[in-house]
Amino acid sequence: MRVESDIYIDGQDALSAVLRYRKQGHSRWSEVPMEPLVNDRWWGEFELTQTGVYQYTLQAWVDPYKSWREVLTKKITAGQDVTLDRLTGAELIEKAAQHASGKARRLLGQFAVALRSDNTGGEDIVTDELAALMKKFPDRSREVSYDKVLSVEVDRKKAGFSAWYELFPRSCSGYPGKHGTLRDCETRLAYVASMGFDVLYLPPIHPIGHSFRKGKNNELSGNPDDVGSPWAIGSNEGGHKAIHPQLGTVEDFKRLIAKAKELGIEIALDIAFQCTPDHPYVKEHPEWFRKRPDGSIQYAENPPKKYQDIYPLDFETEHWQELWDELRSVFFFWCEQGMRLFRVDNPHTKPFPFWEWVIREVKAKYPDVLFLAEAFTRPKIMYRLAKLGFSQSYTYFAWRNTKAELTQYFTELTQTEVADFFRPNLWPNTPDILTEYLQTGGRPAFMTRLVLAATLGANYGIYGPAFESCENIPRERGSEEYLNSEKYEIRTWNFEDPASLREFIGRINRIRRANKALQNDRSLRFHDTDNEQLICFSKRTADRSNVILIVVNLDFRYTQSGWVNLTLEELGLNPTVPFQAHDLITDARYVWHGPRNYVALNPHTVPAHILRLGHEIPT
Amino acid sequence: MRVESDIYIDGQDALSAVLRYRKQGHSRWSEVPMEPLVNDRWWGEFELTQTGVYQYTLQAWVDPYKSWREVLTKKITAGQDVTLDRLTGAELIEKAAQHASGKARRLLGQFAVALRSDNTGGEDIVTDELAALMKKFPDRSREVSYDKVLSVEVDRKKAGFSAWYELFPRSCSGYPGKHGTLRDCETRLAYVASMGFDVLYLPPIHPIGHSFRKGKNNELSGNPDDVGSPWAIGSNEGGHKAIHPQLGTVEDFKRLIAKAKELGIEIALDIAFQCTPDHPYVKEHPEWFRKRPDGSIQYAENPPKKYQDIYPLDFETEHWQELWDELRSVFFFWCEQGMRLFRVDNPHTKPFPFWEWVIREVKAKYPDVLFLAEAFTRPKIMYRLAKLGFSQSYTYFAWRNTKAELTQYFTELTQTEVADFFRPNLWPNTPDILTEYLQTGGRPAFMTRLVLAATLGANYGIYGPAFESCENIPRERGSEEYLNSEKYEIRTWNFEDPASLREFIGRINRIRRANKALQNDRSLRFHDTDNEQLICFSKRTADRSNVILIVVNLDFRYTQSGWVNLTLEELGLNPTVPFQAHDLITDARYVWHGPRNYVALNPHTVPAHILRLGHEIPT
Repeated sequence: MRVESDIYIDGQDALSAVLRYRKQGHSRWSEVPMEPLVNDRWWGEFELTQTGVYQYTLQAWVDPYKSWREVLTKKITAGQDVTLDRLTGAELIEKAAQHASGKARRLLGQFAVALRSDNTGGEDIVTDELAALMKKFPDRSREVSYDKVLSVEVDRKKAGFSAWYELFPRSCSGYPGKHGTLRDCETRLAYVASMGFDVLYLPPIHPIGHSFRKGKNNELSGNPDDVGSPWAIGSNEGGHKAIHPQLGTVEDFKRLIAKAKELGIEIALDIAFQCTPDHPYVKEHPEWFRKRPDGSIQYAENPPKKYQDIYPLDFETEHWQELWDELRSVFFFWCEQGMRLFRVDNPHTKPFPFWEWVIREVKAKYPDVLFLAEAFTRPKIMYRLAKLGFSQSYTYFAWRNTKAELTQYFTELTQTEVADFFRPNLWPNTPDILTEYLQTGGRPAFMTRLVLAATLGANYGIYGPAFESCENIPRERGSEEYLNSEKYEIRTWNFEDPASLREFIGRINRIRRANKALQNDRSLRFHDTDNEQLICFSKRTADRSNVILIVVNLDFRYTQSGWVNLTLEELGLNPTVPFQAHDLITDARYVWHGPRNYVALNPHTVPAHILRLGHEIPT
Repeated sequence: MRVESDIYIDGQDALSAVLRYRKQGHSRWSEVPMEPLVNDRWWGEFELTQTGVYQYTLQAWVDPYKSWREVLTKKITAGQDVTLDRLTGAELIEKAAQHASGKARRLLGQFAVALRSDNTGGEDIVTDELAALMKKFPDRSREVSYDKVLSVEVDRKKAGFSAWYELFPRSCSGYPGKHGTLRDCETRLAYVASMGFDVLYLPPIHPIGHSFRKGKNNELSGNPDDVGSPWAIGSNEGGHKAIHPQLGTVEDFKRLIAKAKELGIEIALDIAFQCTPDHPYVKEHPEWFRKRPDGSIQYAENPPKKYQDIYPLDFETEHWQELWDELRSVFFFWCEQGMRLFRVDNPHTKPFPFWEWVIREVKAKYPDVLFLAEAFTRPKIMYRLAKLGFSQSYTYFAWRNTKAELTQYFTELTQTEVADFFRPNLWPNTPDILTEYLQTGGRPAFMTRLVLAATLGANYGIYGPAFESCENIPRERGSEEYLNSEKYEIRTWNFEDPASLREFIGRINRIRRANKALQNDRSLRFHDTDNEQLICFSKRTADRSNVILIVVNLDFRYTQSGWVNLTLEELGLNPTVPFQAHDLITDARYVWHGPRNYVALNPHTVPAHILRLGHEIPT
């Protein structure tokens, strides 16, 4: 954790400063010295070794010994008389000796005596050894403290690097129309693992309500056979702590968690705090819902849309404390079953203070829990949710298609203060979002968007198997909804389709795992190209031992070619020596010279390069 | 005073917000409504009508009526049933009516009744008249206040636009070697006024010490005849509240102030808080100075340099309160004589808290006093002094010569948050600073630097008559000191030299006065040129009725030509119509078409254009 601060004072006095830090809850502060950079900027750093919250602050003081030594050195250099200066110095050293003991005290005493008795300039006495001793017993009587205690939260590694796969368990039976179970879902884990994903995210697995249950394609009046939306939570079979009977039992779920773990996959659960009219809360706690003037419970509305199958919880009810406690107990319940990863549905429609409180409460008990915010809303709201505790957030990536849009947005996310609190998670599609780009671009568009998501973001995810099947038919023209959306019906997928993107996706995820450069967001840099359809960017490790250059053809129709212009020194390359560009997708190896290099990408074969750059690349 | 703020809330509720402001010391806040811009940004403004400090803050609240009206409108548009919504609205209106009286109360009551009884959609009832009434009686029960009260300080106009002329009164006798007086200085006022300056700044006018008095060219042991440095303040003839006897009396000084005022010139006094060993403070208050280990008073040092003629005051002495009170009384004394403008010498070598306190104290008694900080030090120290109260500050302008340097520095000063607290005052020379550029560039360099100072800065100044005489011989190679510096001897100037820049300077100052565009700093914009020696920038009034384009040849040796590239819309010009560029220096008029235009500037005639741009320029 590197900390920088402007530290200065009027006048000529020399300053010293320390960075102070501690794990939250500990009473003792640790200190590390800060060092000046340029222009009154100082820096210091401390190690973050555990998950949880660290606090830090600064202290700085006028350092009489440092001031004195600077002046003395200048005078000695100029050959000036320093008789009086030696006396001043001896006093400072004697004062320090009073705070020392043992050998240090004896040594300081000797230095002081020598300074008082020496008739030369004193340069032999004012040694680095003395400076080091004086640093141990500083005179901090003129010390000031920074008036804030800041904090930094440390999450486990998955918060910073993860590949998510969203799957509807009920579509896993393998038989058309047959409702899949959590046990069926187990059989698909190997498939998910083969593509290299390390998070399997399940839409809500709770009992689905019957009142106003939506039919296929979100039709208002469904048939009795319709399975309903998993986000319509709650029936007489239970609410947020129950499992939809057709999916199985809590024991099945725990088994799924364990089996997934064996394959390096973590399950993420969807938390959608909303109820159908059939949810047990409605009967047991009508006071947790808002009433209409006629006394009926207010259903969800976003005029002109009505959601009569959904009752929003009233977070500001007079009985809010009981409600909040109950919702906290939902997280606790699933944590007890082994869950550590939650995808939170629409957090921006619930109060900020609720999230701040509940995330803190959950993390206090289960420090390794992570929360992904599905807040498709205005930027400042998204950022606020990140600041108050969400570990990752969905982004506008799905709707950023052109080079200018992508460059502007990802520069904001990774190169501004936003990077200090907001961890983007990039999704080219979701069950709610089939973008126009995917609808019109077909297979090349899916490949392009996958490479962009997986390389622009250290965290990304896809809604599969719709994604690897290149499913791209909208419900109607102008809609981002899927036709025959899996949100409202069981789908049967052909997992063995030879046209599937499965192999390609697996390759991309293996490249991500093998290359540390792709496991961070902050090193992202965009590079000029002379073709608006070619976007070029790089990521690297801090030591530049792993440098990856990505070039993507944004045009899903035609081959695009052009010149990319690299800043070689920044990429750790010697501009006078040729270097190798190893395409990790196709395994092709190019020898490049200098900053300008030619590329051509055919969207109908592979629309992107992921190039490892270096003078010597291991084979 | 325009204020912007991010204002947002979780959920769907509509917000209202007000900007609250008051003059410091007043108890009642005034309120103006704030309006949303885009992306959760709101704005509001209030008028600054008096000098002094204004405080401001914000309040915002969830607005139930606004929320209700938005939802109702959407439902009506969608043709949905609003029976229940009408009841909710009626309740809100009845609640507002309880806070109203008279006609408003009656009207609100009628609206509520109509809503309750109406069987139509209600669109005829929810009128703008009702909205305006509801705005008068808002339900602010769910209001939050911004947790800070911010302040803005209003100075009189001279703080933002001024032209300074620095003159040594003792050089004003007109006879070689004869010590000039304040009465002699009076005779030079017409000369200063003829050049268009509105501030005459005098180096310290106090008695000069005798101990260790510096000789000509800063020699350590002067002759008895040497006049000494005006900054070596204090002798048995008095200290900071006395006038050097050879200059005259306090009455003479008051007369000078009055005569200057008749010519539109304000006198600025130099405040240098330091003492010679002969200053009355040394005898009367030895406790205000730091002691060396041998008991003698510590003189000023900046190793290897020693200033044995100067005793710095010890602002942190145990008796600091008496010292600070005395220094405040120095300001009060000169304010009583009519002074309202102080140039403060080396403020960065005195404590920040002293300046913060003394400036506040002086302004409390004399609200129209302005302080110019001569802080040639590190940028953050300069900015801090500006933040804590200085009205204007010297800058690094003297050492910014190339196009890149000037562009970078003045973009920082005028286009970043620095512009919120720091008012630059640009000096091409001072008695301490004869830059290498002026030393080597001769007359063209003086003209170039004058135009840059007078147009890049709304506030600027020159040290004359050295400037208009193009005096450019340094004391020695590599030094920025003048040979035979006026700091240490009386100089005789030829005010009637036909080679003087007097006429040119007068012309530039008249252009500044006649063109409001040049009277602000924030509108500064740099424009591309294709020649590194040609710098081009513009200033404009907010309404673009006055738009000035400046082009300067930075090469004092050769004619430079090239193309300047303007952003015409930003300059208020129609790109499809030719416009006039009227050179206010030479009175030449050019007709220009489109953004790219050709210029050529010969440094040996006039090295700059100051062009007024417009489609119709008054003749």
